[in-house]
Parts: sequence; C-alpha cells; structure tokens
Amino acid sequence: MVDKTLEDLFITTLQDIYNGEKQILEALPKMTKKASGSRLRDALEQHRLETADHVDRLEQIFELMQEKAGGEECEAVKGLIKEGEEVMKSVGDDTVRDAGMIAAGQAIEHYEIARYGTLRAWAEELGLDDAVALLDKTLEEEKNADRILNEVALDGVNQRAAAG
Amino acid sequence: MVDKTLEDLFITTLQDIYNGEKQILEALPKMTKKASGSRLRDALEQHRLETADHVDRLEQIFELMQEKAGGEECEAVKGLIKEGEEVMKSVGDDTVRDAGMIAAGQAIEHYEIARYGTLRAWAEELGLDDAVALLDKTLEEEKNADRILNEVALDGVNQRAAAG
Repeated sequence: MVDKTLEDLFITTLQDIYNGEKQILEALPKMTKKASGSRLRDALEQHRLETADHVDRLEQIFELMQEKAGGEECEAVKGLIKEGEEVMKSVGDDTVRDAGMIAAGQAIEHYEIARYGTLRAWAEELGLDDAVALLDKTLEEEKNADRILNEVALDGVNQRAAAG
Repeated sequence: MVDKTLEDLFITTLQDIYNGEKQILEALPKMTKKASGSRLRDALEQHRLETADHVDRLEQIFELMQEKAGGEECEAVKGLIKEGEEVMKSVGDDTVRDAGMIAAGQAIEHYEIARYGTLRAWAEELGLDDAVALLDKTLEEEKNADRILNEVALDGVNQRAAAG
C-alpha cells in the first residue's frame, strides 16, 4: 500500500507501534522473570501494566479514526527485543545481567519516546485533539519508565555490577 | 561467548553500536538522496560526517581497551533502518516522505542516545575516564542531531505534509 497523505502515514505508524507494543507486552514477563533485583522486577511489572494501557489507548485512536487496529510486524521492536534476549541468554552474573536488561529496556523506551513524540506532533498538525491527549498520556508514561530504569541503574545496580 | 563482568558487557555493547554506526553510515547517503527538503538534506549530510567521527571514537575506545573492533550485526539498528526504508519506498508524496524520514531518523537517534547514555554510565562506573570523554562527545552530537531533525519537522515539514 502506498501512503499518500500525512494521515495515511500517521495510521501506518500507529499500526507499527501497535504491533510493537504487543511484542513488548509479550516480552516483559520474560524479562521480569529473569530480573534478579526486586526494584527492577517491580519496574518491569509496573511497565507491563502501563503497556496494556498503551495498547488500549491505541485501539481507542483506531476507533476514533474508524480504522482497524493491527498491521505488520514492527521490525524495530523485533530487533530491540532480540537484543534484550541476547543479554538475558549470554550474561552469567545476575547483577551484570540486570544492568544489561535495564540498558535493553531503556533502548526500547527511547524508541517508543521517539515514536509517540512523532505521532503526537502529527496528530496535532492533523487537528486530531482526542488522539493528541491519548498519545500524550502514553508518551509521559514511556518517559517515566525510562527515568525509573535509569534510577535503578544508577542507584546501585551498575555499581554492584562493576564491583563483580 | 558468555559475558561475566560489566567490562565484558561494556565491550559487547560497544561492538553492537559499532556495527550499528557502520550500518547507519551506509544508510545515510541513501536517505539524503531521497530527501526532498534542503534543510533535511543538510541535516542528514551533517550527521553523516558526525557518524564517521562516532565510528572513529569507538575505534579509539577499542584501542584504549586493547580489544578488537567489530562484532555481530546490530539487530536493533537493522530493524530501525528497515523501517526507514519502508517509508522511503511506500510514501508517494515528497513532503510526507520527508516527514516520515525525519521520524525514522529520530527513532535511530533515540536508540543511539539510549546506547551511548548506558555506555557512558558504565564507563564511569568502570573508571574508564578517557572512554567517558569520548562517549560524552558522541552522546551530545546524537542529542543535537535529534534536536535538529525535530526543528526541521516542526518548522515547516509537518505543516506542509498535513496541508497535502
């Protein structure tokens, strides 16, 4: 399919991140299970609940726009998750693995921050006020999840991982 | 190979972004060629020059650590670039395509911001002061590239794309 207008591209990008969020929703419990520190486990579990809300908000936007949810596999999230899985498999030490999983999680958050930032800007340009409000909520939660992971890393995990 | 220490994971992650930067260095001229607006073309060309410096700085860090550069294909960057290529192929309108390419570029920048932020924090924890200084320079350039793309989008491209 060829996208002709910004609205077409907005829908395609929504579908892409919708698929991405669903991939993340599947990956998070596996990461939580592998996490050794309780603060990391809590952060991942909290973000799983938020991610379910993000999927729900995207479905609301599809409904507002009378478009069906769904779409092709999000290649970027697929690669990001694969990278996180590599860390989970290849790191033997619990705290070093936690440090690596936090890094993988932050890479995913940053991807989502970029996507929701773009989608929010496009929705604003297209005058889709209800979509702007929904995207804004999710964007703030992604930024907050990144901040929490950063705190967990800087407040003990990295130091313990470096100490070996 | 199994990573045991934070230093091992630091090296693996350096190798991952090293491969990623080289993929980006190859992708940027293709994006520049497809860009319609001159500000976007200039931004992409400037970032290509910076990216060559990033590769060079990573090589300096490998040398400092007496490790060889190289490593496996960075799956995340591969997915991110694939997503950008999809936009370049599927969008018919020049300005809408520019908007999509800016979005793809910002997603790549955000990935790099996350990676360099992590690498910088780990280098600091590991007491690798020279690496910290090199990573910091690159991190600032990635943040700046993201800001420039944002300005290009908000200062005309999105508006023209929405106007159709």
